[in-house]
Amino acid sequence: MSKGTVVLAYSGGLDTSCILVWLKEEGYDVITFLANIGQEEDFDAAKKKAESLGAKKVFIEDLRAEFVEEFIWPSVQASAIYEDRYLLGTSVARPCIARRQIQIARQEGAQYVSHGATGKGNDQIRFELTCYALYPEVKVSSVFPSPSSHAPADLYLMTKSPEDAPNSPDVLEIEFKKGVPIKVTHIKEGKSKDTPLDIFSYLNEIGGRHGVGRIDIVENRFIGMKSRGIYETPGGTILYHAHLDIETFTLDREVRRIKQGLGVKFAEMLYNGFWYSPECEFVRHCIDKSQESVDGKVQLSVFKGQVYILGRESPKSLYNEELVSMDVQGDYDPCDASGFIKINAVRLREHHRLQGEHRSKH
Amino acid sequence: MSKGTVVLAYSGGLDTSCILVWLKEEGYDVITFLANIGQEEDFDAAKKKAESLGAKKVFIEDLRAEFVEEFIWPSVQASAIYEDRYLLGTSVARPCIARRQIQIARQEGAQYVSHGATGKGNDQIRFELTCYALYPEVKVSSVFPSPSSHAPADLYLMTKSPEDAPNSPDVLEIEFKKGVPIKVTHIKEGKSKDTPLDIFSYLNEIGGRHGVGRIDIVENRFIGMKSRGIYETPGGTILYHAHLDIETFTLDREVRRIKQGLGVKFAEMLYNGFWYSPECEFVRHCIDKSQESVDGKVQLSVFKGQVYILGRESPKSLYNEELVSMDVQGDYDPCDASGFIKINAVRLREHHRLQGEHRSKH
Amino acid sequence: MSKGTVVLAYSGGLDTSCILVWLKEEGYDVITFLANIGQEEDFDAAKKKAESLGAKKVFIEDLRAEFVEEFIWPSVQASAIYEDRYLLGTSVARPCIARRQIQIARQEGAQYVSHGATGKGNDQIRFELTCYALYPEVKVSSVFPSPSSHAPADLYLMTKSPEDAPNSPDVLEIEFKKGVPIKVTHIKEGKSKDTPLDIFSYLNEIGGRHGVGRIDIVENRFIGMKSRGIYETPGGTILYHAHLDIETFTLDREVRRIKQGLGVKFAEMLYNGFWYSPECEFVRHCIDKSQESVDGKVQLSVFKGQVYILGRESPKSLYNEELVSMDVQGDYDPCDASGFIKINAVRLREHHRLQGEHRSKH
Amino acid sequence: MSKGTVVLAYSGGLDTSCILVWLKEEGYDVITFLANIGQEEDFDAAKKKAESLGAKKVFIEDLRAEFVEEFIWPSVQASAIYEDRYLLGTSVARPCIARRQIQIARQEGAQYVSHGATGKGNDQIRFELTCYALYPEVKVSSVFPSPSSHAPADLYLMTKSPEDAPNSPDVLEIEFKKGVPIKVTHIKEGKSKDTPLDIFSYLNEIGGRHGVGRIDIVENRFIGMKSRGIYETPGGTILYHAHLDIETFTLDREVRRIKQGLGVKFAEMLYNGFWYSPECEFVRHCIDKSQESVDGKVQLSVFKGQVYILGRESPKSLYNEELVSMDVQGDYDPCDASGFIKINAVRLREHHRLQGEHRSKH
Repeated sequence: MSKGTVVLAYSGGLDTSCILVWLKEEGYDVITFLANIGQEEDFDAAKKKAESLGAKKVFIEDLRAEFVEEFIWPSVQASAIYEDRYLLGTSVARPCIARRQIQIARQEGAQYVSHGATGKGNDQIRFELTCYALYPEVKVSSVFPSPSSHAPADLYLMTKSPEDAPNSPDVLEIEFKKGVPIKVTHIKEGKSKDTPLDIFSYLNEIGGRHGVGRIDIVENRFIGMKSRGIYETPGGTILYHAHLDIETFTLDREVRRIKQGLGVKFAEMLYNGFWYSPECEFVRHCIDKSQESVDGKVQLSVFKGQVYILGRESPKSLYNEELVSMDVQGDYDPCDASGFIKINAVRLREHHRLQGEHRSKH
Repeated sequence: MSKGTVVLAYSGGLDTSCILVWLKEEGYDVITFLANIGQEEDFDAAKKKAESLGAKKVFIEDLRAEFVEEFIWPSVQASAIYEDRYLLGTSVARPCIARRQIQIARQEGAQYVSHGATGKGNDQIRFELTCYALYPEVKVSSVFPSPSSHAPADLYLMTKSPEDAPNSPDVLEIEFKKGVPIKVTHIKEGKSKDTPLDIFSYLNEIGGRHGVGRIDIVENRFIGMKSRGIYETPGGTILYHAHLDIETFTLDREVRRIKQGLGVKFAEMLYNGFWYSPECEFVRHCIDKSQESVDGKVQLSVFKGQVYILGRESPKSLYNEELVSMDVQGDYDPCDASGFIKINAVRLREHHRLQGEHRSKH
Repeated sequence: MSKGTVVLAYSGGLDTSCILVWLKEEGYDVITFLANIGQEEDFDAAKKKAESLGAKKVFIEDLRAEFVEEFIWPSVQASAIYEDRYLLGTSVARPCIARRQIQIARQEGAQYVSHGATGKGNDQIRFELTCYALYPEVKVSSVFPSPSSHAPADLYLMTKSPEDAPNSPDVLEIEFKKGVPIKVTHIKEGKSKDTPLDIFSYLNEIGGRHGVGRIDIVENRFIGMKSRGIYETPGGTILYHAHLDIETFTLDREVRRIKQGLGVKFAEMLYNGFWYSPECEFVRHCIDKSQESVDGKVQLSVFKGQVYILGRESPKSLYNEELVSMDVQGDYDPCDASGFIKINAVRLREHHRLQGEHRSKH
Repeated sequence: MSKGTVVLAYSGGLDTSCILVWLKEEGYDVITFLANIGQEEDFDAAKKKAESLGAKKVFIEDLRAEFVEEFIWPSVQASAIYEDRYLLGTSVARPCIARRQIQIARQEGAQYVSHGATGKGNDQIRFELTCYALYPEVKVSSVFPSPSSHAPADLYLMTKSPEDAPNSPDVLEIEFKKGVPIKVTHIKEGKSKDTPLDIFSYLNEIGGRHGVGRIDIVENRFIGMKSRGIYETPGGTILYHAHLDIETFTLDREVRRIKQGLGVKFAEMLYNGFWYSPECEFVRHCIDKSQESVDGKVQLSVFKGQVYILGRESPKSLYNEELVSMDVQGDYDPCDASGFIKINAVRLREHHRLQGEHRSKH
């Protein structure tokens, strides 16, 4: 008699195949689930392998469109970046995959979920927190088979080395609406893309060709250790720069400042696996609200590992060329600036006087 | 009879020459002051011009060493960056120059200071706030002569275009002590520099050669307008990346998080002209304290406008390769991770249950 | 011929009467405006005086209901408190009054507004920023007549001294919906109020009777000086405590933490006069969003200057008595706590080891 | 043969006595440790009981002076308050007690420590995190004997009910130096105290007599549950108010604002058990630095559960009565305020214009 049903996040690789076998030996029915979020993978082979190892059912699901729209786009709006460098590409995949796995578990009446994320990694936490949040009664079966010596987990698969990148740039225009890209155009070739998945895939392709978005860092994990991470985020890096530019152009300074603080918090939640938490829902709502006026187009060039902003335009810009120009004063009176400065100096002068008094006394 | 003495920040250019003449006509004695903070300038010609226009005294001072050590180094420690992009190169020069000008004013018994910064710019504020803070009784004579049509203020003087940059990288090693660079070595050439001024000049040279640190942005000024800024900070950009890397490597995660927030505040103070304020003194002290363990060496390559971190080492690193490795468990028990995750999930599960209850009721 | 029309915020007192006369002498048509936001005032007498001094029109408007609903309620949601003590009662009145004044100015075709707030006060800033924000082309005519020696501006008008307060408490129950009070009931007397204005007036009455909400502080003004402020906020103080209690009871910990930071920012904006700013609109939206689940009832007693929380209940509480109890473990496993602690200790232990190494080496 | 030595935090009560017996039965040598941090306790009886139950050694230590000076004083400087209400009295005792316990364990060569804190409480976390931080190799033996039904843990022991408090206030003057109380004087009685322990004990006595500092709250625990807490902090409450007053009086506005943010973080660390962490050390250092000018005297009255500030004086105050007065203008020019306001309004007016344009277009 079966001990119950487990939905296993299955990759087709050695580790999760071992887990599959082990779970069956322990007496569980095993349903495997493999998500397509854009990675290179032989999905057919994985299906066959799972079946041959005794999986009761095999789910292979294309989550690419929802991954881009529901998970990557909010991260772009947030300018989400962990510890000033990591664009959270792998972190953001986890809640998307686990959400679907939980839907399958509920629909198939499975009480258990399992995965192959190792015991020290952030991915275990991201996976399990999502499961508990969305299916509080679920039981997580964490199996840690003695890992086979495997090839380094992280290689650059999407990006060329900047040194081998083309000697001339590609110039793009990205159009944003409410802080989200709605169209990308290759200026010279006239080609353009306008669905979330197409836009993101195209930016990955262009960024990859020019070696954009590689980092080799030491980062602080949620569990308190430092560890080395090697990442490539070609499309994400282009979007980060383009969004930052259009945002500064269109957003009020003080709104941006508050939103910047919320973005830092959002990045930490995302990194630590709290996408499905009340605070992350709240912060996503606030960030989305902040982006209402972030509309416009950014022109940029991608070249030898770098993204260069060339220009920007917006129907909603707060940038007023006339007001800023030195020649046209409008209703700006230089005298006001003096008053502004003197009032700002009141506090500084008092501070200095007080310090001076104390210095002269002692 | 003289109306009093003015110390004028004099550049030798048309604007400040006009101010000089105008101040004399108004009946002031004028002392001119020109600071060398590393810019390209014909200091002799400026001296002669000031004298020929009737300056009572002419001060030309080399502030380069103190500029690097007392103003740039603390900004490096802080990872000071305004609105996520601008490294504050020109902002940080202002308090350095104005401090010396105030010293001259006090020493020469001058009641007035003057400058040529225009009425809408941040530089006027930075200049005047420093003057009031350090010499509360001073009178600032702001003169805004009708500006001659002049060449664009900001051209790239220090950096080549990345497209014209060499086709092979320069590889450097930078050594830090308490978050401050103490030595830079060109790995292939074996050349090294070890005074603050030499280090910074050398990084400007290498960065400039490879087109590092150019930005063309729209930024939010203190006075509430958006304006375009074109900046180049080759050495500063290299230091920003190298420091960020060694800091993440050596600093505790939570200390770094708090320090990151202080750094954002510091950048705003710096941008807005509040270097000499009680809050900026306080924050500089705290940031300096945070850097006590930021010691080590970073290897990096500079190439086509980009800085690539190649590696890092430190006697004080919290990075424990053994602890992090999957194979050696040490006293790390995977079971603990499960407990850690379950406790973190308590709140999420309760939240979900409560929402579920409400959904099912209504 | 008239120089134009001014809408003057008129109190009926000596200062604004002088301004009225002066404006007329200068050749302006003057419309006076007096808002009733709940203060003790002889509105009829003020009307007659304005007319007798030559006001072209006299507006006297009852803004009490909109003041409570649109300005005080959001401040209650925010737990708005400046420098940890001041509940911002007077600050929050300013944008409400100035908004109506601007509406009158637009409707009457007036290009000017004026007021009697003195040149050093926060109220001038609050008033004028609101005017500029809502009517960017308006001209503010700031007149500073040499102030007559007047009685101290702030006396305790609403509150008894706690020493003279009754020797037995009043016990109230306040019901909240989305962080806003919707009903107050006097438990013993069975009396209850359920419109915003009635609720707030009643809490002022009860709080005033028991001497609640008096403070005598030194505060930091926006213009950089410290100044003494004497305030009484009886109803606001009761609401502050009751709201804090129901909020902590119903809000997720982490949402509350973020909201707390936003509340501090909101209080500063309010104090400094930025109610009508993009950042304040944004923050009010976010805070309002955070309050979606802040529903429930708080029982409290008011006695001798103090508010004591007696209990609370809520249909949406995250407080789970079963879960919290030591006897019923539910799915809470003490072993998880050990894992949780050990993982949290990883970072601390590494830190200590590293320090120990350095100590033993040097 | 002994399995090793355990140092047990022993209270003399039933729970820790059971643990003692159980540990001995398991084969451990047990050393008991009981700290005196000011609680009511029969230390002699506890000693005898421990010996009779087979403790190998019994340590009873008076930690009161170091508790006040090294743990409470920094919390006063920080204005440490958790979730806006809880003054962290019990939280701050934990690291003090555990530190001494670890010293004993090291000195006695014990590899184990144990305690009676229950598995769901914050106290377990605070205790164990301190142990791991100070003695990374230690093993914590958490024993959770089925708890006997015991009386409610928290009763008001130190404070009278405000209703039963005296009908006339006590008036005190507290003198601060660098944000720390150095003397308290009873104005009428002329009595004064000037050591940390005496000051704190005296304030507990006075506050207790007047029913100051009782709260009955629901709080958010570190492990993610909400739980009810009943606390009394009479002396701490008086110090909180007095310190807040002298701090606002003497500290620069912007320094205080930054310090306020650090204080919130400090309170969370303290609550969650991270006193001995790199971030808490760092924050304590920064807060201590911020207090350099917090010198002066505060007069206050304690009455019926409340603390009323009556006045304050300081040699270092930034409060300049002349500057603030309306009659003496000094070098304050009302015109400057207009300039200050207009510049602050630039952003608001642009925002409004842009919104207006969009409204009129669509």
